[in-house]
Amino acid sequence: MSQDTSRYDQFQAYRSRMNCRILGDEKERAANGGARADGSVAPGGSLVTKRFFSLDHQTYSDGALPVKTKELLGLVASAVLRCDDCIAYHVDQCVKLGFSDEEIWEAMDVALIVGGSIVIPHLRRGVEFLDQARAKRARAS
Amino acid sequence: MSQDTSRYDQFQAYRSRMNCRILGDEKERAANGGARADGSVAPGGSLVTKRFFSLDHQTYSDGALPVKTKELLGLVASAVLRCDDCIAYHVDQCVKLGFSDEEIWEAMDVALIVGGSIVIPHLRRGVEFLDQARAKRARAS
Amino acid sequence: MSQDTSRYDQFQAYRSRMNCRILGDEKERAANGGARADGSVAPGGSLVTKRFFSLDHQTYSDGALPVKTKELLGLVASAVLRCDDCIAYHVDQCVKLGFSDEEIWEAMDVALIVGGSIVIPHLRRGVEFLDQARAKRARAS
Amino acid sequence: MSQDTSRYDQFQAYRSRMNCRILGDEKERAANGGARADGSVAPGGSLVTKRFFSLDHQTYSDGALPVKTKELLGLVASAVLRCDDCIAYHVDQCVKLGFSDEEIWEAMDVALIVGGSIVIPHLRRGVEFLDQARAKRARAS
Amino acid sequence: MSQDTSRYDQFQAYRSRMNCRILGDEKERAANGGARADGSVAPGGSLVTKRFFSLDHQTYSDGALPVKTKELLGLVASAVLRCDDCIAYHVDQCVKLGFSDEEIWEAMDVALIVGGSIVIPHLRRGVEFLDQARAKRARAS
Amino acid sequence: MSQDTSRYDQFQAYRSRMNCRILGDEKERAANGGARADGSVAPGGSLVTKRFFSLDHQTYSDGALPVKTKELLGLVASAVLRCDDCIAYHVDQCVKLGFSDEEIWEAMDVALIVGGSIVIPHLRRGVEFLDQARAKRARAS
Repeated sequence: MSQDTSRYDQFQAYRSRMNCRILGDEKERAANGGARADGSVAPGGSLVTKRFFSLDHQTYSDGALPVKTKELLGLVASAVLRCDDCIAYHVDQCVKLGFSDEEIWEAMDVALIVGGSIVIPHLRRGVEFLDQARAKRARAS
Repeated sequence: MSQDTSRYDQFQAYRSRMNCRILGDEKERAANGGARADGSVAPGGSLVTKRFFSLDHQTYSDGALPVKTKELLGLVASAVLRCDDCIAYHVDQCVKLGFSDEEIWEAMDVALIVGGSIVIPHLRRGVEFLDQARAKRARAS
Repeated sequence: MSQDTSRYDQFQAYRSRMNCRILGDEKERAANGGARADGSVAPGGSLVTKRFFSLDHQTYSDGALPVKTKELLGLVASAVLRCDDCIAYHVDQCVKLGFSDEEIWEAMDVALIVGGSIVIPHLRRGVEFLDQARAKRARAS
Repeated sequence: MSQDTSRYDQFQAYRSRMNCRILGDEKERAANGGARADGSVAPGGSLVTKRFFSLDHQTYSDGALPVKTKELLGLVASAVLRCDDCIAYHVDQCVKLGFSDEEIWEAMDVALIVGGSIVIPHLRRGVEFLDQARAKRARAS
Repeated sequence: MSQDTSRYDQFQAYRSRMNCRILGDEKERAANGGARADGSVAPGGSLVTKRFFSLDHQTYSDGALPVKTKELLGLVASAVLRCDDCIAYHVDQCVKLGFSDEEIWEAMDVALIVGGSIVIPHLRRGVEFLDQARAKRARAS
Repeated sequence: MSQDTSRYDQFQAYRSRMNCRILGDEKERAANGGARADGSVAPGGSLVTKRFFSLDHQTYSDGALPVKTKELLGLVASAVLRCDDCIAYHVDQCVKLGFSDEEIWEAMDVALIVGGSIVIPHLRRGVEFLDQARAKRARAS
């Protein structure tokens, strides 16, 4: 049985490439779009940019709330703010952390009732991404 | 005279496919991305999800305000919230309900003045979709 | 029978005072907060500011769509963007233009389903403002 | 030791009054601002309005995810969408459900990192409301 | 000549009080709402919360762009996101950094055209705050 | 050395085509999607639409603030409102006006801290667009 994982693969490749462009060393930046016609290499993110990315990562670590709960909070925050890439990232994390489809549906329901029908197109793309993330993991295992 | 209706066709196909994935029975879900590698079929939306979709549909039915007015309200709400798919859906409804281009332009003007220049890229895509929706109907008739 | 119109009165007074501060001549600006300790008068809005206010006004004038429809579009746009003052302004216009409560409820329903439960606190304040606007007009007549 | 609970009390009173105005019977609506100068009583929410409120309530009930998790999701969704009343409502629910301050802080941290510094003023008011909700419960017990 | 600075004073007092509640030591938290009925003191922000506040501060420091430019960027970002407290904070910074009213008007014009008429109520309150900030400084000098 | 400028080229072509469709004369509209199956040509934007586009243009002209500062304000406003096309447009303007990468990074940092991690996917696409805009100019010179 073959299932489409193209959107999953494209998302991961683009995210990884641009994170190298933003956070990487000169060699990584040059290899990911930062190479200049004059041979120089464009600067990556500033110290503030890098600290923001690092604080973002730290926010989802274990604490008074478990990592699983925080990822679900990140998913719902991303859904009501209607960011497809952020939804995709947190859906992938939720799959990796072992959330069931039923749990993810109920989290998306909170986003749907709080954020309204404007969330529906993002729900469609989020469910498509969820199916591809499941297929990817099944193939990998 | 041939006009491009590719974006119109893609929008309708994707929307229809994902609505089947979200609201459909097991067979429809399996056929639209919900088939799992282990042979099981992923669940669709919860009862809350389905009730939300149904309430959304009901909101645009005839009442103290005519359906036409409600669709125009839906279009402007979608435009100021800057959701291309929602704009596309309501533009298509407005075309089906017989709104003239001049009426649609004036509704978009309200969205433009209330929502600002950030609405302009969505206006561009909305007008492109409007042209394709008109072409589609001309071809169908 | 006495009904509270305090929020209605405060809204109109503040809006009128600040519009004079933004759009008015030197005397009006001085009388509305623009008087400086050094005796000078603060500038009002720029030419762009004034043109924006004028274009905003022009957007709601009669055209392919009647003024009534445009005010209702403005109300729903304001509701989904969750701006209490904008909701208050358009509710007042809708009352003046003769919309029934049932029509206003159905317009707010579109905002509620598109914008979600996050709109509810603004719906509460919008309904309170609607009641005060009705009371104000009853008293005036 | 006396602690200020004025904002907590005002929030609950206003919310309760306007919910009666929106969802109540004729007597409740008349008592909460819907009484007209002509002796009639203004209509409350439509069937759609009432169904939306009921679906909103149903969304936070026990399911694949426990009620506690859903309330925390509602809190973070409200925080990133920057609605003080929604934050207040969910903070109160979180207090009633037994969340510790540390857990609420970490949920707000997710909202802060996802939503940015624009969330900070809402965080200030949310923490003030949390303190008042705790004081209210301590007094009640 | 006496000018009203009440909103300015209230904003600064509340902001300072809640920042002590969020970032302060036990004594400061207890004095600003964190004192519990049982004699304990509520925790302040987590390490993530504090790092976010510190990174926020660091973002506006001198670099490739001067502090003045960054404060103006913060003002426009706050205005299009329609946060009165954030607008007030950055207006105050802009006044302290020596921006003229004409420069602030033109920055607000960018926010107005990008963000639309929904920004207008925030512009009104921002101009009122600007007048109070000017009056405050005139009195202080 | 060849660098990808496909996204840059597509953005400029689409923007130019749709602006002709919206603002152009009958011939331009017909050539850009407005040609009808019945041989007629669809109307372009209304007088309000055209005045809005013209006021938008005027907002970024030299005044108390230099054009460069205004474009940077437009970039940050676009970034916190998370509009990829608006970010692309202002990034291109900033490149044309001679901003260094370091200056653009610091402006994006303000957007990142004010708008939160939800801005990150738009930062990725904005940096990719910046690299393509630089490559385009290097090739042109």
